[in-house]
Amino acid sequence: MTLADIRREISPPRHGTATAVALLKQRFGERLVTGEDVRRAHGHTRTYIPNQLPDAVFFAETEEEVRDVVLVCHAHACPIIAFGIGSSLEGHVNAPFGGISLDLSRMDKILQLNPEDFDVTVEPGITREALNAQLRDTGLFFPIDPGANASLGGMAATRASGTSAVRYGTMRDNVIGVTAVMADGRIIRTARRAKKTSAGYDLTRLLVGSEGTLGIITKLNLKLYGIPDTILSGVCPFPSVRQACDAVIQTVQSGIPVARIELLDAEAIEASIAYSKIDLPRSPCLFVELHGSAASVAEQAEFFAAIAGENGGGPFAGSTRTEERAKLWKARHDFYWASLTLRPGAQAIATDVCVPVSSLSDCIAETQADIAEHGLIGPIVGHVGDGNFHVTLLLDQENEEEVERAEAFIARLSLRALRYDGTCTGEHGVGQGKRGYLQDELGEALGVMRQIKQVLDPNNILNPGKIFMPA
Amino acid sequence: MTLADIRREISPPRHGTATAVALLKQRFGERLVTGEDVRRAHGHTRTYIPNQLPDAVFFAETEEEVRDVVLVCHAHACPIIAFGIGSSLEGHVNAPFGGISLDLSRMDKILQLNPEDFDVTVEPGITREALNAQLRDTGLFFPIDPGANASLGGMAATRASGTSAVRYGTMRDNVIGVTAVMADGRIIRTARRAKKTSAGYDLTRLLVGSEGTLGIITKLNLKLYGIPDTILSGVCPFPSVRQACDAVIQTVQSGIPVARIELLDAEAIEASIAYSKIDLPRSPCLFVELHGSAASVAEQAEFFAAIAGENGGGPFAGSTRTEERAKLWKARHDFYWASLTLRPGAQAIATDVCVPVSSLSDCIAETQADIAEHGLIGPIVGHVGDGNFHVTLLLDQENEEEVERAEAFIARLSLRALRYDGTCTGEHGVGQGKRGYLQDELGEALGVMRQIKQVLDPNNILNPGKIFMPA
Repeated sequence: MTLADIRREISPPRHGTATAVALLKQRFGERLVTGEDVRRAHGHTRTYIPNQLPDAVFFAETEEEVRDVVLVCHAHACPIIAFGIGSSLEGHVNAPFGGISLDLSRMDKILQLNPEDFDVTVEPGITREALNAQLRDTGLFFPIDPGANASLGGMAATRASGTSAVRYGTMRDNVIGVTAVMADGRIIRTARRAKKTSAGYDLTRLLVGSEGTLGIITKLNLKLYGIPDTILSGVCPFPSVRQACDAVIQTVQSGIPVARIELLDAEAIEASIAYSKIDLPRSPCLFVELHGSAASVAEQAEFFAAIAGENGGGPFAGSTRTEERAKLWKARHDFYWASLTLRPGAQAIATDVCVPVSSLSDCIAETQADIAEHGLIGPIVGHVGDGNFHVTLLLDQENEEEVERAEAFIARLSLRALRYDGTCTGEHGVGQGKRGYLQDELGEALGVMRQIKQVLDPNNILNPGKIFMPA
Repeated sequence: MTLADIRREISPPRHGTATAVALLKQRFGERLVTGEDVRRAHGHTRTYIPNQLPDAVFFAETEEEVRDVVLVCHAHACPIIAFGIGSSLEGHVNAPFGGISLDLSRMDKILQLNPEDFDVTVEPGITREALNAQLRDTGLFFPIDPGANASLGGMAATRASGTSAVRYGTMRDNVIGVTAVMADGRIIRTARRAKKTSAGYDLTRLLVGSEGTLGIITKLNLKLYGIPDTILSGVCPFPSVRQACDAVIQTVQSGIPVARIELLDAEAIEASIAYSKIDLPRSPCLFVELHGSAASVAEQAEFFAAIAGENGGGPFAGSTRTEERAKLWKARHDFYWASLTLRPGAQAIATDVCVPVSSLSDCIAETQADIAEHGLIGPIVGHVGDGNFHVTLLLDQENEEEVERAEAFIARLSLRALRYDGTCTGEHGVGQGKRGYLQDELGEALGVMRQIKQVLDPNNILNPGKIFMPA
């Protein structure tokens, strides 16, 4: 899917969008916003893909309102794009066919907290930081951390994961059930609160990762975890990315339950030092976090340091102090902004792939050679315990030749991941940016996905133009 | 769904089954078995539901043969029922509309072991004991343990779990991807080997738990784990089931990563003593297993013993010796047979539900009162860390009044679990036995499941009469 392909989609038939907008305006008045600034903010995308504006933005406040909007859009074949806070990276919230952006950020409440059962039911607009702030006094937390302060609805819709997935899994593993409004206005609850069930098809997992194309999530029941007694975070330098990757493989194989284990290559470290004013060794590093009892964390740290040493790395310098840990992870989370220091004035475009862990260092080495050969700037960071890594390309988006070079690189990166039996998108989703690689990755399975989309949303009103290439 | 309802289904229109059988006979000769003994063995079911025989049994040896059989059945609208070893408990392998039982037990090989990536690709007919025996020298194991020596294909199809789910999750969490033959003969691979992916809809989780109604699994890529350095198993008595449940809740809340934590009520303990000749305290007990380093296991055992003591339980007597651990878990796994000692000559029928952990002791107490009130014999065992428990009813299946009383009990039990926001089936699946409760449990979501079934298997040839009530 090149930029040229995406541009061709911008002016398709618009079905009954004008009618739907008029009806919603009549019903909701000023709450249906049509001003260009708000529409632009809802079509934004942190990619080279152009901003594609919806016709109107509706700020929903209740599940009933979501259903009512869907019913109007259903009746008039008007596209409807669910919107959380807009931190997705592959053009998920763009409106290539216009329509209604359904902003869920006002539906941001905790509905039911069940501390004995370690679960909580929330509205989709609550952000992960707000959720954890409200949970703090309970001793519980929600661990999934994609970096951005994303909304939980958006995290579920894109099957987000991030730094803590190596220990706690992804959104796939941590959503017990959802309530969703389907394309025809039916409201379904996919599962009850039991920790496990074998009652029919796993609709929870079908909606998680469906990117708003099968239903609009209006409630989520999430797993919670006890805040660990002891948390230790630290940095361990390595002479090379390969040695760091080897240490990660051995760490996972040894059964050390690392909570986070993040790779930053030498270029990413330079950017973080410059931006975050943090004291780091000037070589590839692993950022590591360990959770458990004091004794268990001490034992894990000792095991990890030994493995790092065997692979030429170290020393492993860690701390259990809150402010030092916070500084380290803030630097990691701010990497997107830090990367901009590598080329002032450029835009940063993050892309990700995921491969079997045993292929990770080969895949990264080939990718670094590819970046150098094609004159790109692209520091690499990765959730290496999962085999997942990101390249952050620093581009002048006005330079068409450069954008084309970046597109060609992303295509090669995606196909390279497939060669290693990996995936073209580990955690950013498909959106518009990765559609072109799904046929290669999934073959006939993509046809099955299309059938499911077709039967559940026959008019293609839910986030059209995402996941699937136009037929 | 009462027995009477199920009996009414036995003689429906048979579509082109005779033609399909004749064509397959022509192609495969003696490998298509039509003798009654073999057919009876493939329709068997450990429930009060009558044995419903297929017209023929085919022992597939390759994925291509599976596809070829499906294509013939697809062309002639002949039912096709995937069969592993037949250890399912809700009538999954019955053939209410006749057709072909597709026995996959000869497809039992490990296809690709990737020790560095902690994954293995297997054929569906391999059993969990055979898999773990073949893995032993690698230091890796597959943890999911439903008790029976089930086939991995069957375990995936029913979303099995069992004693170790509290630590390692269910089949949902441990299948990375599957290859499946769909109803029209298409072969799809749902995911590559990357540990995580956000490339489109989660077809892996859609097929796991679909009970052979959406596709026939021909390969599974499974997660493996390192065999723990230290394993400690032990027994802890409690004065009451409620105190045992309270201890479980606190154990889980404290973050102790128990690998197994099983409840046996006093009646179940008596049965196990009688059958397994094992020395157990004569009161409700928790069977507990702890995994980790020696230091970590010692710490976990100390924490658990303290929590047990606070709840009136103890002493917690554990051992790390292989033969003692094996004896304990053999007794737990043999519980199905042990239960028969409570009423010689009776048949044992296991049913299960799952509720939020905080409701577990209330739900069990009500269930024990219900059993007593209705003159049934039904010891209770449970995977209590997950809120999942089993009632094993000991019935004289020739006694229709008694079978009706048991059915009425199962109905009350299922609806009781729903009142606690739980599920009518925690790990046994729906099959024929639990179909009648899905509407109450899932509401509109059941309609979405039907749409998916309809679009992927429009002729309803894959395991018809399971999960869904006849329309």
